Amino acid sequence: MDDKLQANDRHPVAAAPASLRQRFTAVRAETLALAAPLSPEDQSVQAMPDTSPTKWHLAHVTWFFETFILRPYQSDYRPFNAAFGFLFNSYYEAAGDRYPRPDRGLITRPGSDEIIAYRSHVDAAMMRLLDAEASPKTPEICTLTELGMHHEQQHQELLLMDILNLFSRNPLRPAYRDAEPSHASAPVPPAADWLTFDGGIYEIGHDGDGFAFDHESPRHQTLLRPFALAGALVTNGDWLVFMNDDGYQRSDLWLSDGIAWVREHKWQAPLYWYRQEESGPWFEMSLLGGHPLERAAPVSHISYFEADAYARWAGKRLPTEAEWEVAAGNQAIAGNNLGRNQLRARPANAQGTNPHQFFGDLWEWTASAFSGYPGFTAPQGAVGEYNGKFMSGQMVLRGGACVTPEDHLRVSYRNFFYPHQRWAFTGLRLAEDRP
Amino acid sequence: MDDKLQANDRHPVAAAPASLRQRFTAVRAETLALAAPLSPEDQSVQAMPDTSPTKWHLAHVTWFFETFILRPYQSDYRPFNAAFGFLFNSYYEAAGDRYPRPDRGLITRPGSDEIIAYRSHVDAAMMRLLDAEASPKTPEICTLTELGMHHEQQHQELLLMDILNLFSRNPLRPAYRDAEPSHASAPVPPAADWLTFDGGIYEIGHDGDGFAFDHESPRHQTLLRPFALAGALVTNGDWLVFMNDDGYQRSDLWLSDGIAWVREHKWQAPLYWYRQEESGPWFEMSLLGGHPLERAAPVSHISYFEADAYARWAGKRLPTEAEWEVAAGNQAIAGNNLGRNQLRARPANAQGTNPHQFFGDLWEWTASAFSGYPGFTAPQGAVGEYNGKFMSGQMVLRGGACVTPEDHLRVSYRNFFYPHQRWAFTGLRLAEDRP
Amino acid sequence: MDDKLQANDRHPVAAAPASLRQRFTAVRAETLALAAPLSPEDQSVQAMPDTSPTKWHLAHVTWFFETFILRPYQSDYRPFNAAFGFLFNSYYEAAGDRYPRPDRGLITRPGSDEIIAYRSHVDAAMMRLLDAEASPKTPEICTLTELGMHHEQQHQELLLMDILNLFSRNPLRPAYRDAEPSHASAPVPPAADWLTFDGGIYEIGHDGDGFAFDHESPRHQTLLRPFALAGALVTNGDWLVFMNDDGYQRSDLWLSDGIAWVREHKWQAPLYWYRQEESGPWFEMSLLGGHPLERAAPVSHISYFEADAYARWAGKRLPTEAEWEVAAGNQAIAGNNLGRNQLRARPANAQGTNPHQFFGDLWEWTASAFSGYPGFTAPQGAVGEYNGKFMSGQMVLRGGACVTPEDHLRVSYRNFFYPHQRWAFTGLRLAEDRP
Amino acid sequence: MDDKLQANDRHPVAAAPASLRQRFTAVRAETLALAAPLSPEDQSVQAMPDTSPTKWHLAHVTWFFETFILRPYQSDYRPFNAAFGFLFNSYYEAAGDRYPRPDRGLITRPGSDEIIAYRSHVDAAMMRLLDAEASPKTPEICTLTELGMHHEQQHQELLLMDILNLFSRNPLRPAYRDAEPSHASAPVPPAADWLTFDGGIYEIGHDGDGFAFDHESPRHQTLLRPFALAGALVTNGDWLVFMNDDGYQRSDLWLSDGIAWVREHKWQAPLYWYRQEESGPWFEMSLLGGHPLERAAPVSHISYFEADAYARWAGKRLPTEAEWEVAAGNQAIAGNNLGRNQLRARPANAQGTNPHQFFGDLWEWTASAFSGYPGFTAPQGAVGEYNGKFMSGQMVLRGGACVTPEDHLRVSYRNFFYPHQRWAFTGLRLAEDRP
Repeated sequence: MDDKLQANDRHPVAAAPASLRQRFTAVRAETLALAAPLSPEDQSVQAMPDTSPTKWHLAHVTWFFETFILRPYQSDYRPFNAAFGFLFNSYYEAAGDRYPRPDRGLITRPGSDEIIAYRSHVDAAMMRLLDAEASPKTPEICTLTELGMHHEQQHQELLLMDILNLFSRNPLRPAYRDAEPSHASAPVPPAADWLTFDGGIYEIGHDGDGFAFDHESPRHQTLLRPFALAGALVTNGDWLVFMNDDGYQRSDLWLSDGIAWVREHKWQAPLYWYRQEESGPWFEMSLLGGHPLERAAPVSHISYFEADAYARWAGKRLPTEAEWEVAAGNQAIAGNNLGRNQLRARPANAQGTNPHQFFGDLWEWTASAFSGYPGFTAPQGAVGEYNGKFMSGQMVLRGGACVTPEDHLRVSYRNFFYPHQRWAFTGLRLAEDRP
Repeated sequence: MDDKLQANDRHPVAAAPASLRQRFTAVRAETLALAAPLSPEDQSVQAMPDTSPTKWHLAHVTWFFETFILRPYQSDYRPFNAAFGFLFNSYYEAAGDRYPRPDRGLITRPGSDEIIAYRSHVDAAMMRLLDAEASPKTPEICTLTELGMHHEQQHQELLLMDILNLFSRNPLRPAYRDAEPSHASAPVPPAADWLTFDGGIYEIGHDGDGFAFDHESPRHQTLLRPFALAGALVTNGDWLVFMNDDGYQRSDLWLSDGIAWVREHKWQAPLYWYRQEESGPWFEMSLLGGHPLERAAPVSHISYFEADAYARWAGKRLPTEAEWEVAAGNQAIAGNNLGRNQLRARPANAQGTNPHQFFGDLWEWTASAFSGYPGFTAPQGAVGEYNGKFMSGQMVLRGGACVTPEDHLRVSYRNFFYPHQRWAFTGLRLAEDRP
Repeated sequence: MDDKLQANDRHPVAAAPASLRQRFTAVRAETLALAAPLSPEDQSVQAMPDTSPTKWHLAHVTWFFETFILRPYQSDYRPFNAAFGFLFNSYYEAAGDRYPRPDRGLITRPGSDEIIAYRSHVDAAMMRLLDAEASPKTPEICTLTELGMHHEQQHQELLLMDILNLFSRNPLRPAYRDAEPSHASAPVPPAADWLTFDGGIYEIGHDGDGFAFDHESPRHQTLLRPFALAGALVTNGDWLVFMNDDGYQRSDLWLSDGIAWVREHKWQAPLYWYRQEESGPWFEMSLLGGHPLERAAPVSHISYFEADAYARWAGKRLPTEAEWEVAAGNQAIAGNNLGRNQLRARPANAQGTNPHQFFGDLWEWTASAFSGYPGFTAPQGAVGEYNGKFMSGQMVLRGGACVTPEDHLRVSYRNFFYPHQRWAFTGLRLAEDRP
Repeated sequence: MDDKLQANDRHPVAAAPASLRQRFTAVRAETLALAAPLSPEDQSVQAMPDTSPTKWHLAHVTWFFETFILRPYQSDYRPFNAAFGFLFNSYYEAAGDRYPRPDRGLITRPGSDEIIAYRSHVDAAMMRLLDAEASPKTPEICTLTELGMHHEQQHQELLLMDILNLFSRNPLRPAYRDAEPSHASAPVPPAADWLTFDGGIYEIGHDGDGFAFDHESPRHQTLLRPFALAGALVTNGDWLVFMNDDGYQRSDLWLSDGIAWVREHKWQAPLYWYRQEESGPWFEMSLLGGHPLERAAPVSHISYFEADAYARWAGKRLPTEAEWEVAAGNQAIAGNNLGRNQLRARPANAQGTNPHQFFGDLWEWTASAFSGYPGFTAPQGAVGEYNGKFMSGQMVLRGGACVTPEDHLRVSYRNFFYPHQRWAFTGLRLAEDRP
């Protein structure tokens, strides 16, 4: 998922304007808080075409409210700057032309101050709209506002992913935030247990309760064979064993496209691993800067190609998304998400609130190609572009990461990336067939 | 599928050496017959990296028998030329280094005569091996020989696909074969009927009877909802309507990757369509040379991206591979395949042997990403590379084409290409949900 | 010339430390003044690989003093930050590894404040060094300081070129500085005169008086045939006539490499020309923002390929660098250079201080490939890398531009760029043979 | 120079039709003789965009006579095939559209037989034309025929260069011709002498006697300083010393563009050198196939970048083209050219007919960028495209090679290639200043 979001007009939102106001304010404030540690320069630069500058994220999520809510529904709305419609559209063909994505880092002006002013302008107008007397349009406005907030939460995660990517290119390895002294007791390592499930017909997909994106529907039946999922994510320590077994060299472990990519890009390790000297110990760059590799922590910033190769090496496989959803249905949404403020994946803790590391730490690659559920069709209009048009070439990830807002998570959530991408907070959990 | 083939040691072949000999001779002769109309130059050149020279196909299928059968099982076998192992390996990492695929067209020597001699050398050794007294190794030899013959049949189709691609780059538009005067009565156009199917649990995959590739197994249950498939393939005439409705320009009809590809490559029509003047009528290049577009014939040489966009434009969708297999299970393998010697897709004929155009004319794009069936694992050894390692980024096609040998077809056959590829003989059949 | 500079140990500088101090202070202050109108974001971004961020320029010229003077000659010098040697080396192979040039825009930290502190640190150390009692090393220190100041002046021009390029990519077309109301009387257009010269043996190259770069020597004799140079630069109005005569379409006017470049990059006009609507009037982007094209002003931001094609179209040719140097020897260094603060090329004025537009407005393309003068060899050591290694594939430009500091100009100055480059302030003057 | 040729209407050819006929027949026959050892496949394939298939050379030189002589001057001429004008035009914009150069290897039809027929058709028509009674057009016809023959001779050399390049890509290393047992006595190595010359004004350029290309004129004066040229070409043995001194690694020896190219393309040795095992002895691929490197032979197939780096390493420099022409004026055209049938550069022989290796063995890189002589302008019409439009980015080579026809050589001949190209038969001779 890059910067996509979507309406969901088939699951109307029940929330009243009053409660929306409060959440709107909170979501908007959270985005600014995430940008606060960053200098104007940090916020303006784009490290690679897949990413966007912080400043662009701040403006684009604002553009969403302006374009899809204020312009159509607030009759006297005065746009902040006519040029912003072109500058801050991401990929909505129906919303007109847009500035080329790979060049987003060239827009040094408007500067950060002007973007803050743009946000305030739109926030004030949104408040007026949500304060207005109820009208026949109110349900649509509420639905779209709900959508806009989830959209903004997606970009909160993207903002952090993208900043880490930018900082990783700087040989000084700046930290987004300093590490704090840890007062927690050491985690209790999980038993190497497996979570097992019977075969049969299950239902997956959004159950209609609360917000969801269009591609989480329709809820439908699926036929599964008996299976088991690992009770924890694969760790950095595990990954070192794979690497030391020539994991990145042995073509028999890889998909054909995977080994070709590995060779072309000279991959030797996960994205943010580095060494300070030839054959020296491994370090990892995270939002806390550079630090020695933590063996008990989940391996992160790996591609689908790497996850798939590891599973084959281990004699296992990746879960399908249906298996994952069935398994996660029993788990609390109480993992290491953005609310915990860890900003990186943490070791599993058998005695914590989330012993099996669902719904936090890292998005988990599945074996499922991203496609429409049976009966899926994209909604009409610009919001229909948000997920359906990405249904080729990408793989589904499930769960959520240490940079995902907690109230953005749900069991039916479907994230997706191309198999070579690894700047997201990605990891893997093994699966196997059961008799 | 480019030049891949696979062993299938889990479905041992029952055929005895004697009958194998006969089929071996026939398959080998058929390949030479397909190359016969081509000059030495035609046989040596590679038009794009996806394709291979005819000469390379002739040698590579021979190399297969030499490498996987004669070397391991014929103790006194003397290789024809030690360098051929390097030159004519396609992608078998386990079989050692190989010459770079995009450079296959640079190997002007050995020339065609020497390749013919190579084939004779290997044929003679194979005959000796199949004539030998039975031994404990005989079943393995028979299984691999069977595999080698199916491999060679795949390359018969590839040879024709690749030659058409080469000839299409020549402004003189040479014909592989001249058109013959048609004595057939005009086809009776099909009623625009739909084949309808109930929902429920079906079994798909190879049933263990006769040869199949590894990825057609395991046979397994799948849950389908009620659906219908069109009773004929989409035609050139249909496609013109789509084009005239700005089909190639309207981004709302396309996958995001699809419209990007269309714009980058300036696609305006199927691969081999051309005009002799601006805005003039359309022509098509086929193995019979250039000729006016035939409206009643199925549209061919389209990518998945185009098939998907057409289906969306038509308000329909593509079938899944399970739906296709269920539907085709009722049809005879009696379509327009290589045995009919038409060498291009023909109009549907409601009164012909194959009124619904299954198993011939064109490979049909499905909505299913190519992946392993539940419980699939690749076989051990070099033959394990043949299908499993391609399970990312490609889409499944079903059926068979006018250039596919008839005895190479079966209902469980899974072909696969990347969504942008269209030099294969590809077409589409629409599907829709039923209540 | 990108960011190159050079020692000139064969032309020792006579200046005493005291006067050097004064000039050092002035040059350093001028650089900061040029950066002052730019925001931190403006200063951090790199618009294309040929350019560098302002911040990088500020740091790199400082790194030069630190690396080539303070480290070797100031025994107790404490480097500001050890990592800066890697970050701010441009291309000096002898000075160690360096950060990849195309990635200079990714270094958001150190921020502008820290770069200012770096400059102050180095300035203070330089002052101490220049204040110190004379020693046997003093002449070397003075020579290198002189070199460093000229180097910094080169980067003053580069800074302005690069900012214009960055701003040109922003659809808002920001201005580096606002235009001021003009109080000058209208320029008097020059008569279309030619400056004529006899054939014979001339001397060109640096005459040993004052500073010069290594590649301006040795002074040497050259044999010229009778020639004439145009008395003014080609104007925007002239260029429109060329364009309207299909100048960018007619292959017969162009070098083979030139027309290939034009077609590949779809060039239709000089670099910073644009239209607000199809077939509407032309505008131009300059450091003063976007404004209607001024017909009487010299055409600027053209490549060698364009200059060469124009000359062929006009039935003339470009001057050789020897011809230019001979002709300019009679002219005062009193043109439209950085000191005039115009920041763009201005119309010729027959009654001004520089009626023929030498030494200002624009660098003038010559027909001479950049190579070493007879007897040239590069100096030893890192400073030897500065010009000699660029002697292939580039063309010489002569004169100076509206963004070149006045005391940086001299008649023997040799600038050079690749024939396709046009983000520098480049223009052309016609030449012709005389009987 | 790739496939360029040019008229020379300012130096009318004195030859009468009768003697032209004889030479025409001889040149045409020689081309076919050079192609005779090659199979149809060899003749059809293009190994890289810089090269062309043999078959294309055979047809293109024929197209020249058809296009520039038969069509305009033979009123009843019937073109062999209308499509050939498109297929076999090289780069003459004025002669209409043309098939893309990088795709020349895709034209498998017409086959070799048809190209031979095309040649015969044109030869017969040319004979009729040259046999016809004299008319006012006869001088033009003779001039263009002379030009066409020189053009064809250029392509004789290109044909051999291109075939070597193709064969070098084949791991079987085919030989164009087998080596013959040598009966010659061993060459007598030259003394390491230098040929010295005084400074002063010299004349260079074509003197008007016999045929020359347009860019060899006007003959003009040039001013030289005292200089010396080495009495022999640099040898493979010399080159090994350079390589062993880290010649390909030391950036201080290289032009900036040169070392960038070396690193990007991982150059370690001249183009056709290879090893059979890591750190084993060097071999070289030539038109005689692969063989151990001959230390006494001149180093060949090097780029300008390499020649320049070697000269710098040796403390010398390359000659200018004027120096070379002055020096070669004293030498007989009696070197190792195509007439000697050696097909590769041979060791210098102090007692041979050409002790200093001018006019044969290898084209010699000079320090001179390719540009027009003072007063040069390209001729009108299509023939004006042949040299003038290549005057940017290329360097001049002088002399001639072991694959250049002897009667194609002259002292004023100017060959040119880009500084990175090295598939031509190129070498180097050192130069130095003298007091």
